[in-house]
Amino acid sequence: MAYLDHAATTPMLPVAVAAMTEALSTLGNASSLHTSGRRARRAVEEAREDLADALGARPSEVIFTAGGTESDNLAVKGIYWARERPRVLSSTVEHHAVLDAVEWLGGTGAQVGWLDADESGRITPQRLAEAIGSAPEEVALATVMWANNEVGTVNEVRELAEVAAAHGVPLHTDAVQAVGSVPVSFAESGAAALTLSAHKLGGPYGVGALLLRRDVKCTPLLHGGGQERDVRSGTLNVPAVIGMAAAVRASVSEDKAHIAALREDLVAAVRHAVPDAVYNGDPVHRLPGNAHFTFPGCEGDSLLMLLDAKGIECSTGSACTAGVAQPSHVLLAMGVDAATARGSLRFSLGHNSTAQDVAELAAAIGPAVERARNAGLAGMRRRTSSSVRV
Amino acid sequence: MAYLDHAATTPMLPVAVAAMTEALSTLGNASSLHTSGRRARRAVEEAREDLADALGARPSEVIFTAGGTESDNLAVKGIYWARERPRVLSSTVEHHAVLDAVEWLGGTGAQVGWLDADESGRITPQRLAEAIGSAPEEVALATVMWANNEVGTVNEVRELAEVAAAHGVPLHTDAVQAVGSVPVSFAESGAAALTLSAHKLGGPYGVGALLLRRDVKCTPLLHGGGQERDVRSGTLNVPAVIGMAAAVRASVSEDKAHIAALREDLVAAVRHAVPDAVYNGDPVHRLPGNAHFTFPGCEGDSLLMLLDAKGIECSTGSACTAGVAQPSHVLLAMGVDAATARGSLRFSLGHNSTAQDVAELAAAIGPAVERARNAGLAGMRRRTSSSVRV
Repeated sequence: MAYLDHAATTPMLPVAVAAMTEALSTLGNASSLHTSGRRARRAVEEAREDLADALGARPSEVIFTAGGTESDNLAVKGIYWARERPRVLSSTVEHHAVLDAVEWLGGTGAQVGWLDADESGRITPQRLAEAIGSAPEEVALATVMWANNEVGTVNEVRELAEVAAAHGVPLHTDAVQAVGSVPVSFAESGAAALTLSAHKLGGPYGVGALLLRRDVKCTPLLHGGGQERDVRSGTLNVPAVIGMAAAVRASVSEDKAHIAALREDLVAAVRHAVPDAVYNGDPVHRLPGNAHFTFPGCEGDSLLMLLDAKGIECSTGSACTAGVAQPSHVLLAMGVDAATARGSLRFSLGHNSTAQDVAELAAAIGPAVERARNAGLAGMRRRTSSSVRV
Repeated sequence: MAYLDHAATTPMLPVAVAAMTEALSTLGNASSLHTSGRRARRAVEEAREDLADALGARPSEVIFTAGGTESDNLAVKGIYWARERPRVLSSTVEHHAVLDAVEWLGGTGAQVGWLDADESGRITPQRLAEAIGSAPEEVALATVMWANNEVGTVNEVRELAEVAAAHGVPLHTDAVQAVGSVPVSFAESGAAALTLSAHKLGGPYGVGALLLRRDVKCTPLLHGGGQERDVRSGTLNVPAVIGMAAAVRASVSEDKAHIAALREDLVAAVRHAVPDAVYNGDPVHRLPGNAHFTFPGCEGDSLLMLLDAKGIECSTGSACTAGVAQPSHVLLAMGVDAATARGSLRFSLGHNSTAQDVAELAAAIGPAVERARNAGLAGMRRRTSSSVRV
């Protein structure tokens, strides 16, 4: 079996499993005043310091959440509500956790300004500057992802944050795909808020963080006991927080050159087997584990199933919207037409990927594409003949 | 050591640890289309059926969340937003996850109607009927907890839901303390929405559910990939969901008579050692593991620390707000004065409580109260003498 879907979720790192398993046996609500509670709290605070240190943040800037979707929603809605300004700027290629949060705010009265991506999926600082325009005081926040979850393109977050900061606009960046894959320093980035998710980098499901500068006001999504600077209430998930910190520490210190090299082998193998495959995204400024292709004349879903039957697991785009037969909003935003967009697959490598995984794909992709194309042609003939009959 | 703080968090049940540990080694995002993804999805759906079956709900009524605080916030804000009616009715003795969500809505324009509790902490159906009053069409929702987290009083949710339903008002009930402690059937209760949290009943941290009737509209708090009927987006926490379902199943089928019997022993022992201790809440309609006392002339925090020094762990109230030196809003709502309220402790028993735990408390409580009273008197003398000097 070849698991080529690390961008959807990646196996837990052994060091994270060990840390979390040890913590599972500890008792005590981290908000309790007694010995068990204080011990749990201490473990959480050590994890907070560890995570902050690994990501160039201060411990007090770490807000623990239940994952990337919650962090994105908290940043987008919370900063919009707290700043009480009418405009929200968002790129068109964001993950749905940002995109749908922004669109919902639009439905409640926010004025949404969309930042178009270029054909590689990048948002340029110029585009952001134009969108902020002559009325920066009306902008509640801008949100631009650090790296795209589908095509893997990496944005220049520091330059974007500089533009935003020059106009007094806080920049949120969804770094779910970036943390653990490319160097990320919250302080150096200049971002006001940054989203990360543990299960994308070798930590457990159900836990993430929002790094949030102390000077950025943010209305809570979850009110209650007042945990996490009163920005995110809810009993702290002690074992998961500890597992996440261990995974962050390990993943940011691991050299990614071997993953990038494997990815280059994968890209060469796919191009060799399917010469007209289109390699999407930025060829250079991209996540080391990401390879995203369009296979002309194929339905991505069919191709995915054919590969799955050979034990090769990949994705047509974001796992979160998989199952919905619609073309990727990211590819459409990059200027790809709908039919072509539907014929796309994402292969994503991770910490335990091997040359064998690549070899399995290399052997399977050619015949699978041929079969998907034939099925597509047959389907087209059926549709044509049926339209003739009707 | 005697852990008497099960209402804050209770150790995971062995069956839940086993189920979760096994699931930790499985791979695959439950939204992915490939074999691993479909396997993860199947495991989640089996857990959903299991949990629903144990709680008298349909599988399609189960919305998995990150815990009780999220479920409470989702129900209160989501139903308010979706129904677009101005009034929210809430009891005054709710957990802060409900109370603070309601107060926040009040700040955004909602008209909040507070339901007073009686002196045992109960909300009567009459009180709810009065609050709904002559304009039921203006009420977005009512929220009344199933059982109080501090004093343990159990409400007649079915009668409350009948009153609400007769006026077309959906009732949300925070059943975080009830599920696994008293019989809970979602269908029989008549509630429109019900909150539960795994770590309160022997499951893992960081996971919970909102049971939500299909006919009740609820605007998402977390937008994104569209998981959970589009009411709660975010990657499903597969191992935690499986662990929670196992814990729910085990905890609802366990006989609670031994816990109630231990609790009666604890109450008798405390009354024997401290004859003027006041037993708060309803003596009969209360959670089997809950014993809540006021110790006249004591500071609860001091008493908690004195007991902690003897290896006995308990709480002054909700763990979520512990550390904040203010009297319990629950006791104040029940008519207790602030000074008396501060002298209160909650002892809560759970699945692994023993007679030894009770014996340890029985031996320690008398001397601890005596010492806390002396400290209180000394403090009062200091304050008096200092005020004389100034």
